[in-house]
Amino acid sequence: MKVSELSDRSGLPVQTIKYYIREGLLPKGAATAATRAEYDDTHLERLRLIRALREVGELPIASVKRIVSAVDDEDIGLHDLLGTAAYALSPSADPQPGEPEWRAARQDVDAIVAELGWRVTPDAPTRDLLAQAFLALRRLGLPIVWTELRPYIEAATIIAEHEIGAVPLEGERGRAVQTAVATNVLYEKVLLALRRMAQENASAQRFGGSG
Amino acid sequence: MKVSELSDRSGLPVQTIKYYIREGLLPKGAATAATRAEYDDTHLERLRLIRALREVGELPIASVKRIVSAVDDEDIGLHDLLGTAAYALSPSADPQPGEPEWRAARQDVDAIVAELGWRVTPDAPTRDLLAQAFLALRRLGLPIVWTELRPYIEAATIIAEHEIGAVPLEGERGRAVQTAVATNVLYEKVLLALRRMAQENASAQRFGGSG
Repeated sequence: MKVSELSDRSGLPVQTIKYYIREGLLPKGAATAATRAEYDDTHLERLRLIRALREVGELPIASVKRIVSAVDDEDIGLHDLLGTAAYALSPSADPQPGEPEWRAARQDVDAIVAELGWRVTPDAPTRDLLAQAFLALRRLGLPIVWTELRPYIEAATIIAEHEIGAVPLEGERGRAVQTAVATNVLYEKVLLALRRMAQENASAQRFGGSG
Repeated sequence: MKVSELSDRSGLPVQTIKYYIREGLLPKGAATAATRAEYDDTHLERLRLIRALREVGELPIASVKRIVSAVDDEDIGLHDLLGTAAYALSPSADPQPGEPEWRAARQDVDAIVAELGWRVTPDAPTRDLLAQAFLALRRLGLPIVWTELRPYIEAATIIAEHEIGAVPLEGERGRAVQTAVATNVLYEKVLLALRRMAQENASAQRFGGSG
C-alpha cells in the first residue's frame, strides 16, 4: 500500500508516519520509485503498537524506541520484553537513600517481597514505588502491618495471574506487547474505579445512609 | 496552648494556621487578650485533618472547606460524610453524553452495577470513570466481557470490605475522615505497586527468563 493508504488505515497523519520512520521506530517501505515506497501489514501492525504506547501509555519517543527495539530483537525473551514495557509504564518514585526513614521503608518492602517469595528484580522501580507509599503512611502515623497488607496482596495476585494468563503467546511479539500495555494502563483505571464503587457499596452496607 | 506551640506541634507555620482561620477551616482560639488566643487539642486534631486533605489528598481549599463543614455537621451521617470525602478525592472523568460510543459505555457500567447489586448512587463520578476506561478499551479493539472483569470485581470487593471495616467508628468524626482519606490515597499507591510486582512475578513464573 502507499503511504496515503497506510495513513488512512492507521488513523495517523502522513507527517507523523514519516517522523516515526526518521526516528527509526518504523522500518522504511520498499522503494518502488525515487519518491515512492510500498508498505504492508507489518507497517500497519507496528503503527498500532506505537500508537498504543504513545496514546494509551503516554510514553515519550525514547521509551517507545526502546520497546520497539526489544520487540525486534528476537534474542530477548517474552518475559524480558514485557518487563521492558512494564518498567517504562511504571510511574517513577523519588528514592531518598540518604534518609534513614526511606531506607527503613525500602527494607520493609524487600522483606515483604522475600517473605512472599515473589520473583521481582532487586532494582525494579516498583520496589521504590511501594517504599514511597509506606513512608507516607508511616509519616501519618499509620504503620504498615502484615494484616493490613494481606487483602491488597491477595487482590494483586488475583489480578496479575489473570492478566499474565491473558497475554497472547501465539502470533506477533508486538501484539503481545500491545495487549500488555493496554491491559496495564486501562485495566488499572478499571480497577481503581471498581475499588471506589465497591467502597461506596461497602460503606452503604455498613453505615446505611442515603446511598 | 499559644499559636506558636500549635505551630510546633502541627508542623505548620503560624501564617498557614492564620490563613486556615481566615478561610473558616479552623475555629478561632479563645481570646485571652486583645492580641492573644488560646488553642487546644481540638485545634491540633483539625489541623492534622486539614493537612491530610491538603498534602495527601492534594485537595484545593474549597474541597477541604466542604469536607470540614461536613465533619462539623452532626446531622450528616458517617456514610454521607465519608462519601463527601471520597467524591472529592475521585479523579474526574470527562463525560461525553453527546457521543453514542460514550453512552454505550456508560450503559454497560450501569448494567454491571445493577447486576452486581451494588449500592452506588446514579450520579457517582466513579460511574463515569469506569465508562471512560471501557470506551478507551473498546477503541483499542478490546471489548469488555464479563469473564475479563470478574477478577477485578473480586479484587475490588476484597479490598473495599477490608477498608470499610477498618474505619474507626468510635471517637472523633474528623479522625474517621482522616483515616479514610489516607487509606483511599496511599493504599491506592500500595495496591498499584503490588499489582505491578505481582505481574512481574506471574510473568517470571509463566515465561521464565532472567527475573
